[in-house]
Amino acid sequence: MTAHSKWHLPEDRYFDPDPAQRRIAMELYKSVADLPIISPHGHVDPRLLADEHASFGTPADLLIIPDHYVFRMLYSQGVRLEELGIPRTDGVPVEKEHRKIWQVFADHYTLFRGTPTGAWLAHGLRDVFGIEEKVTGQTAQRIYDEIEAKLKSPEFRPRALFKRFNIEVLCTTDAATDRLTHHQAILHSRWDGTVRPTFRPDAVTHLLHPAWPENIEKLSEVSGIVVDGYPKFIKALEERRAFFKSMGARATDHAVESAYTEALIPAEAESIFQRGLQRKANAEDAHRFTAHMVMENARMSIEDGLVMQLHVGALRDHNDLIYRCFGTDKGADIPVASEFTRNLRPLLNRYGMDSRLTLILFTLDESTYARELAPLAGHYPAVKLGPPWWFHDSINGMNRYFDRVMETAGIYNTAGFNDDTRAFLSIPARHDLWRRTAANWVAGLVVRGVLDTEDAREMILDLGYRLARKVYNLG
Amino acid sequence: MTAHSKWHLPEDRYFDPDPAQRRIAMELYKSVADLPIISPHGHVDPRLLADEHASFGTPADLLIIPDHYVFRMLYSQGVRLEELGIPRTDGVPVEKEHRKIWQVFADHYTLFRGTPTGAWLAHGLRDVFGIEEKVTGQTAQRIYDEIEAKLKSPEFRPRALFKRFNIEVLCTTDAATDRLTHHQAILHSRWDGTVRPTFRPDAVTHLLHPAWPENIEKLSEVSGIVVDGYPKFIKALEERRAFFKSMGARATDHAVESAYTEALIPAEAESIFQRGLQRKANAEDAHRFTAHMVMENARMSIEDGLVMQLHVGALRDHNDLIYRCFGTDKGADIPVASEFTRNLRPLLNRYGMDSRLTLILFTLDESTYARELAPLAGHYPAVKLGPPWWFHDSINGMNRYFDRVMETAGIYNTAGFNDDTRAFLSIPARHDLWRRTAANWVAGLVVRGVLDTEDAREMILDLGYRLARKVYNLG
Amino acid sequence: MTAHSKWHLPEDRYFDPDPAQRRIAMELYKSVADLPIISPHGHVDPRLLADEHASFGTPADLLIIPDHYVFRMLYSQGVRLEELGIPRTDGVPVEKEHRKIWQVFADHYTLFRGTPTGAWLAHGLRDVFGIEEKVTGQTAQRIYDEIEAKLKSPEFRPRALFKRFNIEVLCTTDAATDRLTHHQAILHSRWDGTVRPTFRPDAVTHLLHPAWPENIEKLSEVSGIVVDGYPKFIKALEERRAFFKSMGARATDHAVESAYTEALIPAEAESIFQRGLQRKANAEDAHRFTAHMVMENARMSIEDGLVMQLHVGALRDHNDLIYRCFGTDKGADIPVASEFTRNLRPLLNRYGMDSRLTLILFTLDESTYARELAPLAGHYPAVKLGPPWWFHDSINGMNRYFDRVMETAGIYNTAGFNDDTRAFLSIPARHDLWRRTAANWVAGLVVRGVLDTEDAREMILDLGYRLARKVYNLG
Repeated sequence: MTAHSKWHLPEDRYFDPDPAQRRIAMELYKSVADLPIISPHGHVDPRLLADEHASFGTPADLLIIPDHYVFRMLYSQGVRLEELGIPRTDGVPVEKEHRKIWQVFADHYTLFRGTPTGAWLAHGLRDVFGIEEKVTGQTAQRIYDEIEAKLKSPEFRPRALFKRFNIEVLCTTDAATDRLTHHQAILHSRWDGTVRPTFRPDAVTHLLHPAWPENIEKLSEVSGIVVDGYPKFIKALEERRAFFKSMGARATDHAVESAYTEALIPAEAESIFQRGLQRKANAEDAHRFTAHMVMENARMSIEDGLVMQLHVGALRDHNDLIYRCFGTDKGADIPVASEFTRNLRPLLNRYGMDSRLTLILFTLDESTYARELAPLAGHYPAVKLGPPWWFHDSINGMNRYFDRVMETAGIYNTAGFNDDTRAFLSIPARHDLWRRTAANWVAGLVVRGVLDTEDAREMILDLGYRLARKVYNLG
Repeated sequence: MTAHSKWHLPEDRYFDPDPAQRRIAMELYKSVADLPIISPHGHVDPRLLADEHASFGTPADLLIIPDHYVFRMLYSQGVRLEELGIPRTDGVPVEKEHRKIWQVFADHYTLFRGTPTGAWLAHGLRDVFGIEEKVTGQTAQRIYDEIEAKLKSPEFRPRALFKRFNIEVLCTTDAATDRLTHHQAILHSRWDGTVRPTFRPDAVTHLLHPAWPENIEKLSEVSGIVVDGYPKFIKALEERRAFFKSMGARATDHAVESAYTEALIPAEAESIFQRGLQRKANAEDAHRFTAHMVMENARMSIEDGLVMQLHVGALRDHNDLIYRCFGTDKGADIPVASEFTRNLRPLLNRYGMDSRLTLILFTLDESTYARELAPLAGHYPAVKLGPPWWFHDSINGMNRYFDRVMETAGIYNTAGFNDDTRAFLSIPARHDLWRRTAANWVAGLVVRGVLDTEDAREMILDLGYRLARKVYNLG
Repeated sequence: MTAHSKWHLPEDRYFDPDPAQRRIAMELYKSVADLPIISPHGHVDPRLLADEHASFGTPADLLIIPDHYVFRMLYSQGVRLEELGIPRTDGVPVEKEHRKIWQVFADHYTLFRGTPTGAWLAHGLRDVFGIEEKVTGQTAQRIYDEIEAKLKSPEFRPRALFKRFNIEVLCTTDAATDRLTHHQAILHSRWDGTVRPTFRPDAVTHLLHPAWPENIEKLSEVSGIVVDGYPKFIKALEERRAFFKSMGARATDHAVESAYTEALIPAEAESIFQRGLQRKANAEDAHRFTAHMVMENARMSIEDGLVMQLHVGALRDHNDLIYRCFGTDKGADIPVASEFTRNLRPLLNRYGMDSRLTLILFTLDESTYARELAPLAGHYPAVKLGPPWWFHDSINGMNRYFDRVMETAGIYNTAGFNDDTRAFLSIPARHDLWRRTAANWVAGLVVRGVLDTEDAREMILDLGYRLARKVYNLG
């Protein structure tokens, strides 16, 4: 039997090579490495934690099928999504043999060289599953066996891993119309893990969402308010926010292609809403209504204290064919250039000076970091910057973020780290990567004489743990 | 009494940690560290230097109240500007007790961790005032006492510090309608400091400036030309430029939100100007008139030899409430994306080949460095690039500038350093930071085998002293 | 006689100074340093290689007159193009004395400090011509003598240098209407160098190209198809592509100011084409027709297998005066901001999933690397990213490219290196610079624990040799 290569995960990984910087980075990293994980924004399915017997399924169920970071890379190199077992929405059958899916994945594993996905996978496989060997076409089946066996044991159930990962709090992302039954089950169980819902009303505020009329019906149903017009719509949303808050929510989340904000007068809001109900709304209507609803949600946040997250700049479902056959979140969302200075001005002029509001901004357009976002966060009391998001949740993405944001905004106008993941196994790997990269950044400032070690020690605690807890009101 | 932490300002600060690079950086830095300061663009109040007995006032007058870099950061974290003694334009009273203002500032001092403002403050407090301890809530009052006492001594008057800072020349920024009485006082005094005015006509070229009609009246008054139409307007501007030149001016300065340029035919210019006088000009009028006046000023620069500075991309007074209560320059100017390639084409096609013109471009949109500005400066004889500006006047901002600009433009199409500050105390700190960062950049090229030491030694002299002197015609 | 300074080209140049990284970078670099050069895209004149006796002419003919990278820098500092012997299209005489041209160049040589042009020139002069001394005003004439003498010897003829440079394959760029007589001559000679044409139809697809009507006539002529309308136009292009393919072409090339794509219906394409023939097409027509022809060429590539290159974002001939007097490619092309996500959507939705298509994207707007291009390449099977282009073909440009592209796209969605040059002498220098910079980047990942050496060794072979060969189908 041939010797296979092992994972390369050195103790001091992601630190700059300079020995002085590395020593300080390691010391700073160690001060936060074992702190609990604060996960204020993500997409873990609460169902996994609602039932103490829930299982992650097969290795492919855990690591490939739900993770568009993984399968988009294989797709980009000619692997069909059907081969990877990604379910089609039109019922056309896809690969069911998970060992085969795993083999295809393993055969293409070198595609992940130098990528964050590669780093997360290696970390998870080694540290969580104890897999020492690299995934290759040759080792694929043996590794599958090992993971499969472990996933069947109680120690690898979601709740067990939640504890093992030392997660202090995990926030999920949930539709405004969600009854939060899984969250209720968690609350009513004897399990003491903290899982909080997050109110995400996009499906009822985006008028051209394909399912908008049904979503409005659902909203009427769950709120008990017949949403036949704009005032009732607002009332129903307020009711839902109150419900989410009563279920432990600390934040809302809003995903928009553009950061445009505009306050409609009530009559205008009503007439657009009515056009929506009659399925006569056009793109301009939808654009303005979304802009208005961002403002309305800011107002509601001032009233109910929920932290407001705004994720800007993804053009969703760029690939029509993939969207038609497989639906959303299939690795085909592509960023567009964004504008914040002019677009957020109406909102910030109305609410940005109000310190009851916390508005956390996320961008996919890094050219806005130093140009727009850091100056906005460095002025308006309400604004904080979210961590590097999605394609930028990576070593280089974080380094660019530190480089471009911190001098102008200062770290105290930022919001710590989010993992933003639906891949549960990647949570500790992502937080660890952030903590390492943040420690290395702070260490870089120390060796450059920008910071003394006293400040550095405080800052790594803030970046690695305290800021997320404080800004999201999770303390 | 507890021991308090000291400022951390190591000798070799801001240099990369690699020992070889650091050694070379230090050697290069030392070759320029003590050269006189050339300050070709800034906002120091000439009144401070016009009277040999002028004083900076209290520590808060010196370091907080005039410095929007400082108070915007506190404001962003919920401190009200009133608490910081920032005067309201509407007469509502603000904090008058400067010790209290200082305490609030000190209580929030950790906000400046890792920021350029923090670096400048530390440098100024230690090197100019001899304060060894860090500013904290606890040390605040003792440090206030020390600074206050020193500010009362003759050694800390503006003219004394001007000499101590080894300023070879300081250029102020002055309205086109300014009679330059302070500059006259300086010229007619026996003091030998060189202070030059800079001609900034924005308040008479921006038609929608709230005070435009009064500014035009003032222009008539000071120029002795009744500005009743466009031709007289041009004549009056030419008269003012000649006056500024006679008072020592070497440059003009123009701040525009967009770099758009367009040559209006005289009839069009006249009819827009008349609409302005009748207060009927609209945004499009103002936009085109500004674009035209940028071109006109380029023409005048070719004729009178004044260097032309164009500062592009700040959306001024983003926060309406702050603007209404406190006026301009209150830390609420936010950058917008900029475009130079198409916008400057009319101007450059007409005047860009003329080596009598020096047009220095400044941007707040770093995405234009490598994409537009370096290629333009690397082609047109008239174009030079100004140093990293405002939010980018920082270690990282400078590193990004060197990284993105120099390969395409070469250093000889750049204009050395500007401090651009109204915070007099920060002048030596800012120049020192530039000299260190430039030395580190050049040293980085040496250790990477891009430059030999012979070239490196010339380049640091150019970057740290000679370029600003030459490009601004201050030699 | 005074000692003159020597070129500074240390063995380990362009590597980071950290000793550990440098050691690994050197090892990786050595594994590719002597591999043959794959040059899949460039602008070398095939005439030079068609005749075994062809000569490069004088030193100025070789290094200055054809190289807009060189003369734009001198022009930017006030040297007139006439002084440099750049031929005027209007027949006005220019400097003919090549020694004088060389002297002007040498007198300004310090302008190239820290620039890629400086690095390429030094490499070429030392390694190819054995010139040890730096070019200065003083050494100019002696160096001219040396180069001139060598250029007259058979060892310095183009074919000899082609072999000495170890070029495995060189692809030229050729108009759709080119009869490829030089390529024919090469094919029919006994010389075994591989020189392939590349099909570039821009001059017949850009309706407002000044020579468009004549180009269409030429197209009729060379294709033998009377191009009197859109269907014949398409047929003629298909014929030309087939001809190019028969002559060894592996790729097409398309330069567009904007990446906009749109599928016109045939009737619309025809009516726009007819307006073009009648010289009545407007800017909108041209814009849409170009967008349509990009799509059509993608379709043809799927059919004939030619790799498709799309170079986006140069505003050509920004300086009207230079264009009128000297024509195109005179160092006055300036980049503009680009958009790919929305603009390429029509093309990618139609052809992006087809793995018969290879679409290589090039940008001059680095803000699109991480935001748009890496996500697109990391999803669509057809998309690959070309290397850093033009102003970004430099150490920093490459570092920014690796930094922003690779985490999201992975290296296997990129296309290795192109030199894209008309300066034959710079070819080995450019490839060497890429190999060094790539080795340094990979080494940086190794010392940061991101890669193990096993992966690193494969990746440098891919980046330095295999990817270009594979993606361009040159293996």
